[in-house]
Amino acid sequence: MNVNKYVVGVDFGTLSGRAVVVRVADGAELGSAVHEYAHGVIERALPGSEVRLGPDWALQSPQDWIDVLRLAVPQAVAAAGIAPEEVIGIGTDFTACTVLPATADGTPLCFETPSRPHAWPKLWKHHAAQPHADRINELAARRGETWLPRYGGKISSEWEFAKALQVLEEDPEVYARAERWIEAADWIVWQLAGVESRNICTAGYKGIFQDGTYPSADFLAELNPGFADFTSKLATGRVGEHVAGGVRLAALGASAGTLSARAAEWTGLPEGIAVAVGNVDAHVTAAAADAVRPGQMVAIMGTSTCHIMPSDRLAEVPGMCGVVQDGIVPGLWGYEAGQSAVGDIFAWFVDSFVPATYTERAAEQGLSVHAYLTSLAEKQAVGEHGLVALDWFGGNRSVLVDHNLSGVIIGQTLATRPEDVYRTLIESTAYGARMIVETFEKSGVPVEEFVVAGGLLKNPFLMQVYADVLRRPLSVIGSDQGPALGSAIHAAVAAGAYTDIEAAAATMGKRTEAAYVPDAARADAYDRLYGEYRNLHDHFGDGKALHKLRAIRNEASA
Amino acid sequence: MNVNKYVVGVDFGTLSGRAVVVRVADGAELGSAVHEYAHGVIERALPGSEVRLGPDWALQSPQDWIDVLRLAVPQAVAAAGIAPEEVIGIGTDFTACTVLPATADGTPLCFETPSRPHAWPKLWKHHAAQPHADRINELAARRGETWLPRYGGKISSEWEFAKALQVLEEDPEVYARAERWIEAADWIVWQLAGVESRNICTAGYKGIFQDGTYPSADFLAELNPGFADFTSKLATGRVGEHVAGGVRLAALGASAGTLSARAAEWTGLPEGIAVAVGNVDAHVTAAAADAVRPGQMVAIMGTSTCHIMPSDRLAEVPGMCGVVQDGIVPGLWGYEAGQSAVGDIFAWFVDSFVPATYTERAAEQGLSVHAYLTSLAEKQAVGEHGLVALDWFGGNRSVLVDHNLSGVIIGQTLATRPEDVYRTLIESTAYGARMIVETFEKSGVPVEEFVVAGGLLKNPFLMQVYADVLRRPLSVIGSDQGPALGSAIHAAVAAGAYTDIEAAAATMGKRTEAAYVPDAARADAYDRLYGEYRNLHDHFGDGKALHKLRAIRNEASA
Repeated sequence: MNVNKYVVGVDFGTLSGRAVVVRVADGAELGSAVHEYAHGVIERALPGSEVRLGPDWALQSPQDWIDVLRLAVPQAVAAAGIAPEEVIGIGTDFTACTVLPATADGTPLCFETPSRPHAWPKLWKHHAAQPHADRINELAARRGETWLPRYGGKISSEWEFAKALQVLEEDPEVYARAERWIEAADWIVWQLAGVESRNICTAGYKGIFQDGTYPSADFLAELNPGFADFTSKLATGRVGEHVAGGVRLAALGASAGTLSARAAEWTGLPEGIAVAVGNVDAHVTAAAADAVRPGQMVAIMGTSTCHIMPSDRLAEVPGMCGVVQDGIVPGLWGYEAGQSAVGDIFAWFVDSFVPATYTERAAEQGLSVHAYLTSLAEKQAVGEHGLVALDWFGGNRSVLVDHNLSGVIIGQTLATRPEDVYRTLIESTAYGARMIVETFEKSGVPVEEFVVAGGLLKNPFLMQVYADVLRRPLSVIGSDQGPALGSAIHAAVAAGAYTDIEAAAATMGKRTEAAYVPDAARADAYDRLYGEYRNLHDHFGDGKALHKLRAIRNEASA
Repeated sequence: MNVNKYVVGVDFGTLSGRAVVVRVADGAELGSAVHEYAHGVIERALPGSEVRLGPDWALQSPQDWIDVLRLAVPQAVAAAGIAPEEVIGIGTDFTACTVLPATADGTPLCFETPSRPHAWPKLWKHHAAQPHADRINELAARRGETWLPRYGGKISSEWEFAKALQVLEEDPEVYARAERWIEAADWIVWQLAGVESRNICTAGYKGIFQDGTYPSADFLAELNPGFADFTSKLATGRVGEHVAGGVRLAALGASAGTLSARAAEWTGLPEGIAVAVGNVDAHVTAAAADAVRPGQMVAIMGTSTCHIMPSDRLAEVPGMCGVVQDGIVPGLWGYEAGQSAVGDIFAWFVDSFVPATYTERAAEQGLSVHAYLTSLAEKQAVGEHGLVALDWFGGNRSVLVDHNLSGVIIGQTLATRPEDVYRTLIESTAYGARMIVETFEKSGVPVEEFVVAGGLLKNPFLMQVYADVLRRPLSVIGSDQGPALGSAIHAAVAAGAYTDIEAAAATMGKRTEAAYVPDAARADAYDRLYGEYRNLHDHFGDGKALHKLRAIRNEASA
């Protein structure tokens, strides 16, 4: 094993890309660098153009991604103080579904016709294809498509088919010119290796690839006759198979090829080193946390929370985002679930509902407003604020799969203070997590361990609330750059330094078990509050009230 | 008629007393003065003493009331620029139930034993007698006492019997020494006229005087054997009757006697002028608004809202505060209903949940935060914020009579802003008002006109919301010192300048009809939102969730 060598992991996020240099022998993170995207998220108008975008649009520029390779990778290598020649592989992960139309040679269409909105990559949070997703779901349910339950009963407007159908129907010329419809996760690997590959993870979770096939041409034609042959723009064939005219669907941890001369020039890395198959930021984090065995649920907690769990059992879990064979590690079913908004909720509250007296006192104490509110909230006994909230301020992904739900707070009195609501919001997201865990277990998919990664780890009070509400110990990842570390681990496997992801993760991944353990008395108290949360969940989960309010809102805003 | 003369109205509030000089001929308000109580509300410790008070206690000092007569009345007369000799009567109104123990000559017990908390007057918002009220209600319901439905099924911890029972059980010596248990409304008239009288209004609404009698000695003995003869400390006998050993119960608008030499010295007014029978601030406002005919509902909207309405019909309206024969004007049934918190809700939100960016922008524009939020909220179309709230942040008086309920807000998203919540809170109180109006009408008591008085009149946007939500024109009072004007009108009747309250109010009262009229489109939109409010009202009104949260809160806080 080349364990005295190094690998580079590159994590492509929403606003920036991060490269990290990792030692193959032990996973030590030796240096990293971040490149902020020059174009950020493109939401209002196309770059250098008067062309305005509609509501709910969100695009990115492929140039920004290339710039991460050009700038962040060499900086990370320099920061690590190693010789580039000692790097044996590079791995990448991406937000998903971030997807773009390209020509047969991989040229993004937006490089050719930058004034056409649909030629640009659609970022994961582009939500303008909701009507298309609705039609896909309605038709799939009507036809009893067997793949639908694999996605908790609903596919998302964020995913490949909905976004592509939007292109077809709103800009048929761009659709026709798009010889390839490709996840950014795969496109960046194409740029590195010079050859197209498609990873099984995004194909499964975002591309509706199930049981060796995509949705049928018959199904697609019923959506729109022009959509019948859409899958010819994707990969075809089962994992590892080359199909005539198609592209192989590649296993995670495999090599997608070797670093091209052009990519070697961009990155300063040696030509010919291994390039790992593309991956998704959340899913690759499981390796970084050494949590790739059945029943290890990794919660990546940030603005939203993504739950990733391998399992040896297949079940239809209500409201999961997806279950994909080999979707996290080869040989196991990979489950994904999610909470639409978590850190976003706390940020929203802090930005909009905390008075000057609090922000001033926080400043006096040298604390962020979050830290100040936490310092007040953590003094309370469980339930002392008298409140319960439904954490649906950004809709509900798991377990209800309903983005038209919205938040609920009950129990306020004239004595309710900002720290009371802040604590309640934190608790509400913990109740949401418990609902997900319980739904998996009730569906016959055991959750053996709850492992936390992501930015919210930095709040120990919040972590303790989760341990108490979940009534189970929390493990925590030992890295604050989980996705990039996970990509580096995949690179080590692709380079042959380890036999498989499990082995690499066991050595290079970092996890502290039982970093937080539940307090029995607090857990008992939370059981009662969680019971109230469940009641609210049942009552408002049917959407009768909340959908009506949203419909009234939409009419009034129109 | 002495219509070219003047009368003085004195309104005793929670933190201050106000005197106003009014011309008998036309109700013109010629001068006024306010005296802030030196002791304010006594909530923590007794004045000049180490004696601490328990939670939910609230007391006042009788000396402060006397000081209003000594200071504010002469100042108001001076401000009016009239000769004191031209004043022909004085009338007063008080918060209620504000009640005190006194000796047979009217000396407040707190003047004798100032170190005993129970010797002091208990302000209306003294809520420490809740356990006693609970027992009264439980026993009355069990025995099927016929007076209970006259109070919407529940008497309040604020009222005479609950507060007196607390004294008996917590300080029996003070209870025994209290030869009189008297509303401040009547005590102040005693000080003016030198003779004790009891007004029918507080006797009915706060003293459970119904159908010519108080609760039976049998009932009282079952509460506590020592409570059996409690009513001997009150007035006895029907209106106008003198009963041996008792005190006459006096009709509103009648004279309670003439100004004593001592009171003439205090006030600078002529000895011997008419002193009107005592009254309650909310009820006397009906006269000030010339709204003393059947079906004229006067909503006094301030920190809370009190609804006062005369009617020619007796009905048991669910959740009303009380119905009292002759309780607003002689010859009609007087209804009272209430919303526990209204302006208090808006103040709570502004104090605790509006960020610095908003308070700074308000200051830049020279606006109060309320005015700034209103300026943003009023630009919205009905329902544009997507929210509905239950206005129970201070509990619910009418129509559920449940102070252990609490607030609910539903529909928030990450795009919800402070002005959205602020508007929603305003609307929620309007829905609460509509619920009250509809409950009266469903019970067979027609509401012919909705008349607004009180501090919230100064927000035209809020008024328009009420007109739209209620789907009816709003009349508004033409005075910003309604209670004092109403007391002055009662003084004019007591002095014989008018034959009755109706006649005096028609000339001296001030009301603009249809000051706000509903917009049909907005009213239609509000109908849909009100439907959602009703659903929430039904769902949470049973208290299952909200009582449980409160119980958990109380346990956790203990």
